[in-house]
Amino acid sequence: MDLTQITDPKFLKKLSIHEMEQLAGEIRHFLIESVSRTGGHLSSNLGVVELTIALHRVFNSPVDKIFFDVGHQCYIHKILTGRAKDFSKLRQYQGISGFQKRSESVHDVWEAGHSSTSLSAALGMAVARDLNHEHYHIVPVIGDGSMSSGMSLEALNQIGDQKRNLIIVFNDNNMSISQNVGALTNGFSKLRTSKGYNTLKADLKNRLDHNAVGKTVLKSMTAVKNYIKNEVVDSSVFGEFGLEYLGPVDGHDIKSLIQILEVAKKHEGPVVVHVLTKKGKGYPFCENDSEGKWHGVSSFNVETGMSHHSLPQGHLSWSQIVSEPLVRLAKQDERICAITPAMITGSKLEKFFALYPERSFDCGIAEEHAATFAAALALEGKRPFLCLYSSFLQRAYDQINHDICRMDLPVVIGIDRAGLVGEDGDTHHGVFDISILRSLPNLILAQPKDSNELQQILTCAFKQNHPFAIRYPRGSGAYQETVQSEPIAIGSWSIVYEPEQVNMTVITYGPDVDRLKNKMMTNNLPIRIVNARFFKPLDEKMLMMLSDEQLPVLIYETDMKAGGLSSAVLEWCCDHHKTLKIERIGIGDHYVTFGAMNQIRRHEHIDLNTVCEACLKLLNKERGE
Amino acid sequence: MDLTQITDPKFLKKLSIHEMEQLAGEIRHFLIESVSRTGGHLSSNLGVVELTIALHRVFNSPVDKIFFDVGHQCYIHKILTGRAKDFSKLRQYQGISGFQKRSESVHDVWEAGHSSTSLSAALGMAVARDLNHEHYHIVPVIGDGSMSSGMSLEALNQIGDQKRNLIIVFNDNNMSISQNVGALTNGFSKLRTSKGYNTLKADLKNRLDHNAVGKTVLKSMTAVKNYIKNEVVDSSVFGEFGLEYLGPVDGHDIKSLIQILEVAKKHEGPVVVHVLTKKGKGYPFCENDSEGKWHGVSSFNVETGMSHHSLPQGHLSWSQIVSEPLVRLAKQDERICAITPAMITGSKLEKFFALYPERSFDCGIAEEHAATFAAALALEGKRPFLCLYSSFLQRAYDQINHDICRMDLPVVIGIDRAGLVGEDGDTHHGVFDISILRSLPNLILAQPKDSNELQQILTCAFKQNHPFAIRYPRGSGAYQETVQSEPIAIGSWSIVYEPEQVNMTVITYGPDVDRLKNKMMTNNLPIRIVNARFFKPLDEKMLMMLSDEQLPVLIYETDMKAGGLSSAVLEWCCDHHKTLKIERIGIGDHYVTFGAMNQIRRHEHIDLNTVCEACLKLLNKERGE
Repeated sequence: MDLTQITDPKFLKKLSIHEMEQLAGEIRHFLIESVSRTGGHLSSNLGVVELTIALHRVFNSPVDKIFFDVGHQCYIHKILTGRAKDFSKLRQYQGISGFQKRSESVHDVWEAGHSSTSLSAALGMAVARDLNHEHYHIVPVIGDGSMSSGMSLEALNQIGDQKRNLIIVFNDNNMSISQNVGALTNGFSKLRTSKGYNTLKADLKNRLDHNAVGKTVLKSMTAVKNYIKNEVVDSSVFGEFGLEYLGPVDGHDIKSLIQILEVAKKHEGPVVVHVLTKKGKGYPFCENDSEGKWHGVSSFNVETGMSHHSLPQGHLSWSQIVSEPLVRLAKQDERICAITPAMITGSKLEKFFALYPERSFDCGIAEEHAATFAAALALEGKRPFLCLYSSFLQRAYDQINHDICRMDLPVVIGIDRAGLVGEDGDTHHGVFDISILRSLPNLILAQPKDSNELQQILTCAFKQNHPFAIRYPRGSGAYQETVQSEPIAIGSWSIVYEPEQVNMTVITYGPDVDRLKNKMMTNNLPIRIVNARFFKPLDEKMLMMLSDEQLPVLIYETDMKAGGLSSAVLEWCCDHHKTLKIERIGIGDHYVTFGAMNQIRRHEHIDLNTVCEACLKLLNKERGE
Repeated sequence: MDLTQITDPKFLKKLSIHEMEQLAGEIRHFLIESVSRTGGHLSSNLGVVELTIALHRVFNSPVDKIFFDVGHQCYIHKILTGRAKDFSKLRQYQGISGFQKRSESVHDVWEAGHSSTSLSAALGMAVARDLNHEHYHIVPVIGDGSMSSGMSLEALNQIGDQKRNLIIVFNDNNMSISQNVGALTNGFSKLRTSKGYNTLKADLKNRLDHNAVGKTVLKSMTAVKNYIKNEVVDSSVFGEFGLEYLGPVDGHDIKSLIQILEVAKKHEGPVVVHVLTKKGKGYPFCENDSEGKWHGVSSFNVETGMSHHSLPQGHLSWSQIVSEPLVRLAKQDERICAITPAMITGSKLEKFFALYPERSFDCGIAEEHAATFAAALALEGKRPFLCLYSSFLQRAYDQINHDICRMDLPVVIGIDRAGLVGEDGDTHHGVFDISILRSLPNLILAQPKDSNELQQILTCAFKQNHPFAIRYPRGSGAYQETVQSEPIAIGSWSIVYEPEQVNMTVITYGPDVDRLKNKMMTNNLPIRIVNARFFKPLDEKMLMMLSDEQLPVLIYETDMKAGGLSSAVLEWCCDHHKTLKIERIGIGDHYVTFGAMNQIRRHEHIDLNTVCEACLKLLNKERGE
């Protein structure tokens, strides 16, 4: 069928099992083709094709609320709710989001991007429904990676206590982005092979084969209840949380899925439906990927699996720019350990993990635990490198404050994906970390402009004795292995461009430092460029010099303005009774949309052209005065 | 014995069981007497007298690392490690802390204040120990309330995976501060009555009765290992996390405690020792308290249990000042729900919970889940009041950002204990929330100066459609039920004192507004007082007026200066090209110690006298110009 003609999932009610299986094939084909052109999340979506069809067959969206934890596995949901036609603009500026978005469709009833919020959301919805005396189904779909995170377990603890009607679809592919870790994984494995499923499946088949699919599958509620009572696996981790359990069921067998969901629908109280899926199902490159390389992809050749995207000669991703010297430093310094919450591949820590397995720790999706674990390692004389995406670091704010900074422990925090991240959008932009970390005592907060400076700052971070956070962006940069890192003074900024005639100064940080320098040189503008590589402490000597000079200063930030670098400089001026003529460019008081980096930078008026225009204006104004 | 003569826990090794029981009685007596004079945490400490004695008898602190989750139950540990003599200054300025403090003693090997960090800390220590090829015991003591929090469960997940030697002492009193909630509680209950303990106890008794206590209690490691293998309760929640389990054991029976800890000591891998204790043991007022009123107390009469501390006539605690109108508003507006993470009593929500049980939710120690749960309730049309202590709100930063603010949901966040909290000290001061919340889009952030304004702002918060956070301090204020709340404009500040002659302005917030006003009036100073009751949005009209006027402005903050109110004002001035002669007073770049509020305010130079001196200086300077 023509997927772009779908306007509403109701059409599924009329399809036979065979027709739905055909549809699954078509969707899978569409997904591979479409994502090969636009990039996006592929493996996780290929894993839930049949599941999503079955969910929309059994439940009535949007009255029944179906939603996906994290949300990047919602593509089939988008197709079935009338958005296939928009897939050519998936994750593109002003196109459709790669996540559920309430503004896009009435069928998107919850939004996420960060893991493990769906169970808390489901309970909130269930309470509201019950207070309103309404009756509908609430169906969060959550993976095994997300299920093991603390937030999910907190939610399960209250869900098991409250006993409200909730159908938790446990999408178990034994992966988060890469292989799952943690003791709970073993419990899930036991369930996978438990007799619950086999008995259930055989029994249901016997009972249902004579019924037309789509009719009420079991004769009476009593039968269903007894059935569930006998078949639930009480002794699982779900049993410990007081939840009933159905499954496991083959997540690629539409008929079985429909059957088990129909049973769940008639269950009173919270129930977990355990669905076994294969991440990447139907596309061999994805199926055979245990490291998560096909989790989120840029455009690629469907036949060869080769990415169309390649880094310029001599470039590495920023994650790699950090992990390469980290590996070298760890060779010299046995105290260095690496800690990541389920992001070995994303943070390019594979080499570190392979070379130093005994000093490598994947904590699972558990940022809170990871940060305090790092604190204790540091307390006992180790030098942990705690690697967090900026946006997910938000989850560990309290631990960074209460444990790491308050005890003044030498944890080096690598803040990956700092700043705008492009296509993932508002849930993933790492634009808040400066604002929230800047008020933390004892913390040093830096961002290098290039790979050379990264190596200097990283070396410096491991040589000193305080918490030290280093931001670095998504994307790539030129990489050269520094033969010997020169020492860098903590809190020192540098002037990277000083024309003969200086009429104003731009202070900025990160890769924009050199981009802007090039612009200034090309245009031969009388503008000094300062590399504010430390947000905390500030370079007071430099600030003193600038305030003595009394030329205009433009602070160009690529993160939230509120509480950011300019805010720090303004505070310094105030406390030192210095006046600086400061203009600032940065992200205003709103969340930032998704799209290609250059487009959203333009959208936010933080692109280089805007900066140059602002400079020219300032220069003119200065001349006019 | 004279407890103040204890210098080191080694003396315990020589005591008989009977002598240790006597010691327990003496410690209990000392605790009640001492805390009755100084105030402090009583019930939780009375519950772990025998346990702490047994721990220090069996293990060798500080080589073996014994530490307490949260830490307020460390008083006996302090006594046994030579600090009884300092208890007259417990929690007092420049005295000893109510929590473990590394600077106080080599026996304090970890610091906390927030719940559920001990297991992550223990794993970090175990990893460091193993990397160093050292051999010692790591013994975190954690309560059942803390155990159910997400962070603990994240740690258990990795502890069960890593299988390192760790002895987790599970101090189960079936309480957090008040009654425990959540499904896991049921699992713990099952364990409490499991046969594991009875068999273990009987068997151990038979084996051990002929051995002198203090010698190796069991003949060989093999015997111990077999023993454990048979007696562990594999099917508990701990079993699901891959941990071995010993217990439960009577936490007030020193002999049994020593026996079970000796067994645990010989165990390979992580083991949970389940200890049943009675919170408040030995002091009837505490024993009979199920609401947590005796959790943290001010000084009291030992005989009558009556507090020496009473509020001035007409005063209520700020928590009560908020909960009273909340109850009234909830009567008129059925959409209003109350959510607390295990702080019903602390946040004075008892009345709300009693009147509206179906709209009341105690999530347990689970700030993350609580915030997203609130978001979902708001999404579905409810008006949740999410009540968090400022310091614990830090745990929910990501959920407030990613879920509540990003989706622009009308959750009203009550930020209790905002600002300095006095005796609890650095782990509990609520001084960061303005800095971290100010950069969140969509959020409104306010703090009323008094109970009347609180009622106006609270009413306003429930009438609008955005996330709205209201800070209020620890301590009390005059309370009067406003007959009818006048509407208050969001973002509006007010001038509370305008003398005939105005030479400068002080901008401040919260209860200091009126305190300062009184000072100014008494001293007849030409200083205007502005009540900055909104941190976000700012009152731009007022700022415009002040900048037109060009008189000096002192911004007086009682929270972190970095990123706080003054920072917001400086940013506004910059963006609007206004110059304001701003001085600021607030908390600098360091953590704040513990002690009586007036003493730490003086210590931080944020007391009213310092403010007045600064004002006089500014006035003089202004005159001199």
